[in-house]
Amino acid sequence: MTAVKSDDPPFQHIGIFGVGLLGGSLGLAVKHLWPQTRVVGIGRSPERLSEAAACGAVDEISTMPGAIEPALDLLIVCTPVRMIPEHFSQTLPSLASGAIVTDVGSTKGELTSVCERIAGGRVRFIGSHPMAGSHKTGLAAASADLFEDRVCVVTPSSASDPEALKRVQSFWNALGMRVITMTPGEHDRLTARSSHAPHIAAAALCHAAASAGDAILPVIGSGFKDATRIACGSPDVWLDICMDNREALCEALSSLQDVLGAFQQRLQDGDERAVYEFLEQARRWREGADTPS
Amino acid sequence: MTAVKSDDPPFQHIGIFGVGLLGGSLGLAVKHLWPQTRVVGIGRSPERLSEAAACGAVDEISTMPGAIEPALDLLIVCTPVRMIPEHFSQTLPSLASGAIVTDVGSTKGELTSVCERIAGGRVRFIGSHPMAGSHKTGLAAASADLFEDRVCVVTPSSASDPEALKRVQSFWNALGMRVITMTPGEHDRLTARSSHAPHIAAAALCHAAASAGDAILPVIGSGFKDATRIACGSPDVWLDICMDNREALCEALSSLQDVLGAFQQRLQDGDERAVYEFLEQARRWREGADTPS
Repeated sequence: MTAVKSDDPPFQHIGIFGVGLLGGSLGLAVKHLWPQTRVVGIGRSPERLSEAAACGAVDEISTMPGAIEPALDLLIVCTPVRMIPEHFSQTLPSLASGAIVTDVGSTKGELTSVCERIAGGRVRFIGSHPMAGSHKTGLAAASADLFEDRVCVVTPSSASDPEALKRVQSFWNALGMRVITMTPGEHDRLTARSSHAPHIAAAALCHAAASAGDAILPVIGSGFKDATRIACGSPDVWLDICMDNREALCEALSSLQDVLGAFQQRLQDGDERAVYEFLEQARRWREGADTPS
Repeated sequence: MTAVKSDDPPFQHIGIFGVGLLGGSLGLAVKHLWPQTRVVGIGRSPERLSEAAACGAVDEISTMPGAIEPALDLLIVCTPVRMIPEHFSQTLPSLASGAIVTDVGSTKGELTSVCERIAGGRVRFIGSHPMAGSHKTGLAAASADLFEDRVCVVTPSSASDPEALKRVQSFWNALGMRVITMTPGEHDRLTARSSHAPHIAAAALCHAAASAGDAILPVIGSGFKDATRIACGSPDVWLDICMDNREALCEALSSLQDVLGAFQQRLQDGDERAVYEFLEQARRWREGADTPS
């Protein structure tokens, strides 16, 4: 990775709860950047934690989140989105006063309110969504440069501590990420359209294709495969995302169905000009989205 | 390409109408396999035809499809799907009696009936759909191995001549393609779900994302980009496909909207089990589609 090593680590003792793809990569990146920082891997499975230690992603391991010493000054919860509040709560006794807590969850609205309540006045929660996923999962796919040049959305609320916000932004930035900042609600509304509805659309295309029976398999080409690759994502992870971002996702899916329905009507009417415009506007927008901002 | 060269070319004088990605690649592949076969590039633009000749895709060029000598024993029409009948008609005077005519069009139902009427009793039309497209277009992207290991759907009707069918199947097979055979109607019904509806869904995802304004651009990740890459395809090509396969496409789009609507209802109801099943079944089917048949 190209991120510059620093002699002045921003945190002394970092806890990473969950050592899968994101947690493992985070440990590797932190140890690469700030070798003096101690990283403790937290989780339920001693075997998985030991693997993370063996590959250098963490220095220490703990299956007792409430009994880590010395106290942590940063906790990053890297578990499935609906487990984050529970794992944060469990680790609370191990956090130094004023410690910073963040996460890597794909939804932010509900989560932020709950985590801010857990933080109370003693520690400071700032939600993060490093958009560095992969359709691969697990520690085996972890890499120190997973975050490089990717976007991290940091989602302060009106209750957030400005200094904690600044330190969380700097942390992701040090890992090579392009940090953008928005409210938790704005994050959920936008990612429903950029990520969650596309996932459901890909799964729906698979269902619609499957209903044609096995005869369709030979005519599944690379276009279909590209368009539906995201449907291979873990159903457990995506169940959490769907349930957690239910409202914004339903709104995005309604909008998608409206667009499809309007197109179908034009096609049925034989309105060639409208069909062409639909295709051409989508193409132009999609090509613009490829241009780095 | 690994296809084996043969000393016994199945055709002596092949006409390729349209020298874009598919026509150009076809010329290169034919000349590689059967150097003695004469290939004539047919089209409107002398400049484009000359380029095809310069890169070795064709031996001769003609802008007068009805006046090619000696007579062609194979014509492959590689122009946009709604131009195919007209280009076939124009070339009819240059075809030997009993000559074989095929095409590379992405829709087959309408086209087959029209082309069979044009063929009359004098020449033999057998529709083909070599699934070897790319989101790139034009001669510059042409390559002799474009067809290798890809699927070619050959679509005889009840009126088709069995010997002509066999020769068309062998032709694509010699180019390294996996040939499958089905009726034109079955082809259109299946590709509506495997290719055309996915294209419209990708375009619809772009429209739904675009409606959120520019704020969405930073949270467009690799998942969205993969899922919508096909929306970059040429609107001209896709307008033809949509209009030509209108009925089957509308049916596939209805089915897709039904699947999306049913999912949204489950999500609104908070039916976690149904949401999970939807995700898991799609994942399983999609992973199965990756396994070579």
